Amino acid sequence: MSVPPGIDEKRLASALEKFRRVVGSEWVFAGGEDLETYRDPYSVVWGEKEETRPSAAVAPASVEQVQGIVRIANEYGIPLYSISTGKNLGYGTNAPNHSGSVILDLKRLNRILQVDDKRHFCIVEPGVSYYDLYSHLQANGFKLLMDLPSNPMGGPVGNSIDRGVGYSANRYRDHFSSVCGMEVVLPNGELLRTGMAAVPGADSWADFKYGYGPYVDGLFSQGNLGIVTKMGLWLMPQPEHFLSTQVSVPRYLDIVPLVETVNYLEDSFLVGYVRYNSPMEIPRVQKSKPDPDLVAIMLQPGGGQPEEYERYAKQRNMPYWTATLNYYGPKATVAANWAYTKERLGNIPGVKFSELESCAFPLKQEELAKVKYPATVGVPNLASFALGTRSRINTEPSDGHIWFSPVIPRTGEAVIQSHKVFGEAFKELGIPARMGPYSGPRTWMYRSFVMMLDFYTSRTDKKANRQVYEAFKYLVEVGAKHGWAEYRTAPLFQDQVAATYSFNNHALRRFNETLKDAVDPKGILSPGRGGIWPRHLREGWT
Amino acid sequence: MSVPPGIDEKRLASALEKFRRVVGSEWVFAGGEDLETYRDPYSVVWGEKEETRPSAAVAPASVEQVQGIVRIANEYGIPLYSISTGKNLGYGTNAPNHSGSVILDLKRLNRILQVDDKRHFCIVEPGVSYYDLYSHLQANGFKLLMDLPSNPMGGPVGNSIDRGVGYSANRYRDHFSSVCGMEVVLPNGELLRTGMAAVPGADSWADFKYGYGPYVDGLFSQGNLGIVTKMGLWLMPQPEHFLSTQVSVPRYLDIVPLVETVNYLEDSFLVGYVRYNSPMEIPRVQKSKPDPDLVAIMLQPGGGQPEEYERYAKQRNMPYWTATLNYYGPKATVAANWAYTKERLGNIPGVKFSELESCAFPLKQEELAKVKYPATVGVPNLASFALGTRSRINTEPSDGHIWFSPVIPRTGEAVIQSHKVFGEAFKELGIPARMGPYSGPRTWMYRSFVMMLDFYTSRTDKKANRQVYEAFKYLVEVGAKHGWAEYRTAPLFQDQVAATYSFNNHALRRFNETLKDAVDPKGILSPGRGGIWPRHLREGWT
Repeated sequence: MSVPPGIDEKRLASALEKFRRVVGSEWVFAGGEDLETYRDPYSVVWGEKEETRPSAAVAPASVEQVQGIVRIANEYGIPLYSISTGKNLGYGTNAPNHSGSVILDLKRLNRILQVDDKRHFCIVEPGVSYYDLYSHLQANGFKLLMDLPSNPMGGPVGNSIDRGVGYSANRYRDHFSSVCGMEVVLPNGELLRTGMAAVPGADSWADFKYGYGPYVDGLFSQGNLGIVTKMGLWLMPQPEHFLSTQVSVPRYLDIVPLVETVNYLEDSFLVGYVRYNSPMEIPRVQKSKPDPDLVAIMLQPGGGQPEEYERYAKQRNMPYWTATLNYYGPKATVAANWAYTKERLGNIPGVKFSELESCAFPLKQEELAKVKYPATVGVPNLASFALGTRSRINTEPSDGHIWFSPVIPRTGEAVIQSHKVFGEAFKELGIPARMGPYSGPRTWMYRSFVMMLDFYTSRTDKKANRQVYEAFKYLVEVGAKHGWAEYRTAPLFQDQVAATYSFNNHALRRFNETLKDAVDPKGILSPGRGGIWPRHLREGWT
Repeated sequence: MSVPPGIDEKRLASALEKFRRVVGSEWVFAGGEDLETYRDPYSVVWGEKEETRPSAAVAPASVEQVQGIVRIANEYGIPLYSISTGKNLGYGTNAPNHSGSVILDLKRLNRILQVDDKRHFCIVEPGVSYYDLYSHLQANGFKLLMDLPSNPMGGPVGNSIDRGVGYSANRYRDHFSSVCGMEVVLPNGELLRTGMAAVPGADSWADFKYGYGPYVDGLFSQGNLGIVTKMGLWLMPQPEHFLSTQVSVPRYLDIVPLVETVNYLEDSFLVGYVRYNSPMEIPRVQKSKPDPDLVAIMLQPGGGQPEEYERYAKQRNMPYWTATLNYYGPKATVAANWAYTKERLGNIPGVKFSELESCAFPLKQEELAKVKYPATVGVPNLASFALGTRSRINTEPSDGHIWFSPVIPRTGEAVIQSHKVFGEAFKELGIPARMGPYSGPRTWMYRSFVMMLDFYTSRTDKKANRQVYEAFKYLVEVGAKHGWAEYRTAPLFQDQVAATYSFNNHALRRFNETLKDAVDPKGILSPGRGGIWPRHLREGWT
């Protein structure tokens, strides 16, 4: 049995016995196949000493049971690692930061407590998945559109507090920004409610997020100061119409004016999710082999030069960049916003516009069948997520992926600079570039650019994994040198990423440690999460 | 000289001497007229024992000087009370929560550090006023629209971290929601940066607010864990067109479907600021005396019944409710959104629609002159704020006002219930109702309703003030019983309001106290702000 450092097997066994009294013995998993499910199947250190493994798992069915477990953990000094649905694939899944932690699995807290389609919100527990919520909305005829991440096996609570992102419009895409009111079990077992939820009898829990006094909800995102057991979330009212369009521009440097105008449209609420792309980015799933000429450019050290891609595109009468722009709203508004988009972007020489797909709400099955990315219309679907396990040039499926996700400034110039810098980094690493001057910024994170790239992981090829692991760490370092740091990462890299937010000798980390030690003096809750370790585990740090 | 409890005059004098060495003796104010300016001129306890008064004030010119003062305050145990521009009129102005505090006046930190009209943000210091920022945008031709509170003498930092609100579109109205990245002097004098600002060299300070790890910015709003010295703020790109319209509905109960549809429009980004009103609400400034028949209804105990107002309106062919709906965007989008509004609201019998004013951007002087509320088009102006010092029925100007601002659910039903409950409360108080069934909810606070009402204060009539003071306290209590609690209040009422967020024996306050004691062990920073007192000042609390 794996045990947390400093805890002997007897002590752990005794704590687990107490857990059993709280939740029933069938809900404590202390080994065997059950416990195997609390590993990150996408781990780049699968089976290596760096892979973090839990000692046990416990699945409470109520808030009171969560409180009971937390109190016992305090008594015994047992580290817990709380998960919601536990499906954070690509960012660590359900494995802990600290080996030997007991997984506190909240999957059984799966009630949808309230849905309001006049005020456009829901209040849910952490075990509710996006699929669950979607089914509930459909079954009850609620005219609401959920913003979805690519993996709908996850749920709103876990995704929002890990600051996950989605595909629809405006702030709904920034899931944490739509969180409104929380219930939290604190590390001492006490129950906290925030915002209007702290006012007994308030029916405005999910209307107004701040309440009075310091707005504390952010502390429970990417952190380890509490266990969220209920959460309000704003939802988008079902629009009348959806239109997906495409803008294409011929030259590499056209990304600069393209971004400038699209920023304007987004910040004016005229356009929803924007997908920057290039037809030269080889699709992950394709019917025929990719063009060897294109592969030859890509496989050059550093991923090729913009001039080569520009020449390649010109010869084939292809645009260099495309931007998929999605519109939501009344039909006439959507038409006006699209017309305005064309007017504003018309000054880029060679720009072309096309309409991809459109549909009316409520969606009919035959209309939905025509929508390429169902998440853009609020329908959970694993198709786009599954692409993450397909490699681009090699069509063999991989075992999993991890995301390198640095935030860069929201300009075309920054996109260009990131191509140069990361291209150079891949050259230095001597491995094929996972991005190139055809890579567009991701705009899931509202008002921000993430120059995201994915690496594939294996459960058998330790050598390939090690190469990915080293490359990832190097890229984090290279990004930080340019002021580009990750918005989210798997536990394996959380210390390194947190350390890149280093202003004034890591003042932010030290501030968070001060809070951690005050709120969780025994350091039992998710030690290491967000790069924050309790005092007894960070001794020796400089 | 007023001194903080537990600090003798000699100790204070010695600290002030040290402050003088940091900022120069001309920037420490220890008495006389200079110090008189650090009183709340709108105080309802002006000249009474409850009025909180500072012992001195100090005005640093740089972040380093702020740090120096904070370190000295720690050494001497001197409470500081930090203010930005100090113009929070109606919510306490620049007077401290705790008498004897030294005001830390940040007005000299008044640099506009960055404005970007391609990414739509600014980075400013706390002494920058809305007027300053407006002048800077105008002088440099930045195509940006500031969201403004009614008092533009205030500034973006102070207003945003007090969670102030404004008049334009969507989340821009919720000022704290548009905050992106902070620099903060902590109570120990250390400098913290949050979000991307914590990454050395990052140019995305004001693009992406969360950075990595817990999102801590909310702790510095309505709280006392740090002094914000720099702040990023998202701004709205200048739209092409502005249209202000009015919808009117004939019956009291029409507020229910009206709110329902307007919620839909707002949450779909189709409409900006909405002002619910009634033609029966007597305008604060009027050319002739109000109709005595209307005044007679209003002056009834509890402020009259809906049926009476309904009859009054019907006889005069007036609507019961109006809603001013403002639209921002390309001209065709604005037209489409307005047309859609009419379509959606057309099902309310007797509904009428009219266009009030429209203009194109950039604004020409002659167009601006026609705009009734310049704040709606981003132009600072004191006209609407000054109305706050006018009483409604009595046209004599008052000396000031305080706001009672409870959050109610965002439904017409809640509006109706609040009329009944607060009407009854005024009846019990035996004073003329400051609201009635003609009172509309305020929607400044994005996605929320605040059933705001104002009381007038006097610098001479102590008896009238006492009545207002008692009425205010009673209304806070009545509201809380129904789950309606204030979003913001003056220091005088902060303990009471914070106490209404009482879930689980004040778990939220106790959580905030834990953080306070950890981050500010000497309790020197703004003790009492947000209802949070440091340990040595809360002893004896139950």
